[in-house]
Amino acid sequence: MENLIRFGEKFFDELEIAVYRSREVSANVELNEISMASTRSGALTIVRGIKDKRLGLAIVDSDDPEKVKEAIEQAAKMAELNSPDEKWVSLPEPGKYREKPEPNYELKEASPDVLVEMLVRGIKLAREKDPSAVVAGGAGGVSWEERRMLNSHGIDVSQEGGASYIYFELVGRKGDVVTPGIFDFDARRDLNLDVEGVIERIVQKVKWAYNVMPSKNEEVPVILGPWAIAGLFGFALLPAFSGERLVKETTPLAGKVGEKIASEVITLYDNPFHPLALEPVIADGEGVPTRKNVLIENGVFKGFVWDNYWAKVYGTESTGNGIRDTKSGGITIGFHSTVIENGKRSLEDIISEIDRGYLVDGLQGAHSSNPDNGNFAVTANPAFLIEDGEVKGSTVFLIAGNVYELLKGASEVSKEQTVMPFMNTMITPHIKFENVKIAGK
Amino acid sequence: MENLIRFGEKFFDELEIAVYRSREVSANVELNEISMASTRSGALTIVRGIKDKRLGLAIVDSDDPEKVKEAIEQAAKMAELNSPDEKWVSLPEPGKYREKPEPNYELKEASPDVLVEMLVRGIKLAREKDPSAVVAGGAGGVSWEERRMLNSHGIDVSQEGGASYIYFELVGRKGDVVTPGIFDFDARRDLNLDVEGVIERIVQKVKWAYNVMPSKNEEVPVILGPWAIAGLFGFALLPAFSGERLVKETTPLAGKVGEKIASEVITLYDNPFHPLALEPVIADGEGVPTRKNVLIENGVFKGFVWDNYWAKVYGTESTGNGIRDTKSGGITIGFHSTVIENGKRSLEDIISEIDRGYLVDGLQGAHSSNPDNGNFAVTANPAFLIEDGEVKGSTVFLIAGNVYELLKGASEVSKEQTVMPFMNTMITPHIKFENVKIAGK
Repeated sequence: MENLIRFGEKFFDELEIAVYRSREVSANVELNEISMASTRSGALTIVRGIKDKRLGLAIVDSDDPEKVKEAIEQAAKMAELNSPDEKWVSLPEPGKYREKPEPNYELKEASPDVLVEMLVRGIKLAREKDPSAVVAGGAGGVSWEERRMLNSHGIDVSQEGGASYIYFELVGRKGDVVTPGIFDFDARRDLNLDVEGVIERIVQKVKWAYNVMPSKNEEVPVILGPWAIAGLFGFALLPAFSGERLVKETTPLAGKVGEKIASEVITLYDNPFHPLALEPVIADGEGVPTRKNVLIENGVFKGFVWDNYWAKVYGTESTGNGIRDTKSGGITIGFHSTVIENGKRSLEDIISEIDRGYLVDGLQGAHSSNPDNGNFAVTANPAFLIEDGEVKGSTVFLIAGNVYELLKGASEVSKEQTVMPFMNTMITPHIKFENVKIAGK
Repeated sequence: MENLIRFGEKFFDELEIAVYRSREVSANVELNEISMASTRSGALTIVRGIKDKRLGLAIVDSDDPEKVKEAIEQAAKMAELNSPDEKWVSLPEPGKYREKPEPNYELKEASPDVLVEMLVRGIKLAREKDPSAVVAGGAGGVSWEERRMLNSHGIDVSQEGGASYIYFELVGRKGDVVTPGIFDFDARRDLNLDVEGVIERIVQKVKWAYNVMPSKNEEVPVILGPWAIAGLFGFALLPAFSGERLVKETTPLAGKVGEKIASEVITLYDNPFHPLALEPVIADGEGVPTRKNVLIENGVFKGFVWDNYWAKVYGTESTGNGIRDTKSGGITIGFHSTVIENGKRSLEDIISEIDRGYLVDGLQGAHSSNPDNGNFAVTANPAFLIEDGEVKGSTVFLIAGNVYELLKGASEVSKEQTVMPFMNTMITPHIKFENVKIAGK
């Protein structure tokens, strides 16, 4: 690969080569049965080169040196045809990396059989615990990735590792009641997925969901669960921490470093080295060392995150948040593992003190949130009514609000913390918000 | 491969093996520049086997016989763990295929350079024709696929072929006006993509869009363009022709064969052999011969389409509409190339007779349509106001209605027919609908 960097220097002022080798096994569930098992593996090389501030970028799904050479030539031709990007400064210089965590090699060669067995066990357990429910869907997967990132300034960093996940979705039917799809999941850096725990949590929620109750317009405490938080914060809040948005003036956090933007129970950071993180990467997509970046500390906004390009445009340094999009080949500012710090009391204790309120499992429509100002309008579904310290039944309602207003009303975070592996990877407790205005449906 | 079928018969009562080899080159545009060029290729084998009515399905991204054997064993283990599907009858028997159309081998080895060159040409032309516009996005691609489908009843059918596409999206800025993203495209079974035509159509629409005009609540003629039609019909109408929905009682067309469901200007069929079709497949995803299936003829509903499974459940024959989902490996009822027959007069002539009405390029929100009853609620954007036989400017409005009501009001179809290559492949003219109720925005 070093030779290929030398080869590329014939065409470019500077260049980088990123190689990803991956393997993924997975299995799916449909209507109580296993519907598919699959094994996929492959290599992907992304070449990004700059000549006279003109960018060339080529992707080839191979790590064969001859194919990579072709991709370099392809990128060089493209750079010639493009106009200069006057904002371009340079690719990153080498940095000091943390020690790599030891990967679990059990994940490297996992067979789909392991997943099929877990899924069958989950289906069986679910149907035993609730004969009225159908396992509408589900899936399990084990992924393994080997990545290497080199550039002509001397960066050469590689790492390998894997993770596994499982989820199920149940629909309960009793009399006239058909519950919404009720979902739960587990994800880890080994194969000890907690099938029993996932099913237990789902069956509990389905049981609540059989008792459909009306919701009404009111201002009450609302507890959001991990899936709801990951969805809402992923679309309405997290983009606002991007340095690119600071430069482009599309973040409401501009000029607010050091200001209180949330209640003091909220501490939020990005940290690939958190014990629950699924990808403990020591380098980001451009080879810049990763680190823990605090976003909100006890309610106070601490700063933006940056990739190499936008950091240099702004005159600061990359925070190691350049995320590689293997589809477009490009780098965008993003997160490795966003973490919301947990609290001291259990979810059960928090629920037990609520006279009237709601526990929200999922929020629909979060993707339409506006990160420019934090406004959102979502449907809470599945959602559960809490009365006299206990969940009494399920309901659906709307919340239209602003994520910063919501954050100011956060009053407690639960002891339990969950890693939510889909969309944005987020490690989060349940969060209780006070005086949330909801519209009954 | 025949040997692998024999190998699989040790485990299964019947089985099929589908092999897909594909190659795709593509290039993308972002903000007036080429942002990426990519070359991807690979093989995928899907094994579906049935033992005592129990299904096993395994996917492996290889066509290496050893890997396929592993997939067969994987599928066999899964079948053992699944419950019997009492509705299962059998895999399809061999049928008589049409002659394969000669593929264009130029597409097999196309270089991304060809696409980069076309995209650069398109960007240059667009900026010459409209210096106030930005080429916000765009892409070109050339795909090639070799497929072979075998089963233990003697089906063995293979075919190869390719297609290419290009699209651009422009945003115009003049004074305070920022137009919505204006989009146009071309797709063909050779490399003669009409870059100039695509840019010309977009620039014309951007020009209209600079003149922003209010819309109001009214009942007027509305012409829908290919992109709008493909979106709306794809979600609100086409699913209703599925035999699976007839069995499951989720189509409003049950019991309506021979009834008039649209105005007589509407003739709709599925036909992979249409001259503009991008994939002229002689066999569907299960190896059943494809054919022209008429759905609506001069307004009259002619019948449902079927895959092998649901046809046998219902007691009829597959119409060759079993579409393979290479992600899940499964077969679902779908379409090859839905065609709406064209008319005699040009779009320009049709527009010239409208005193007041609208020409709609895109419909947002069509994916939320309800195919169970045909109801939809969409935002027409980009949309253009027609007055005194000419397009006068651009606007945005809402249409909430029912696709069958809309179809009854169709009064004319244009002479020009376009192949819309995204989402559902649809070959369609512009369609004029009378007395459409719109809500100004």
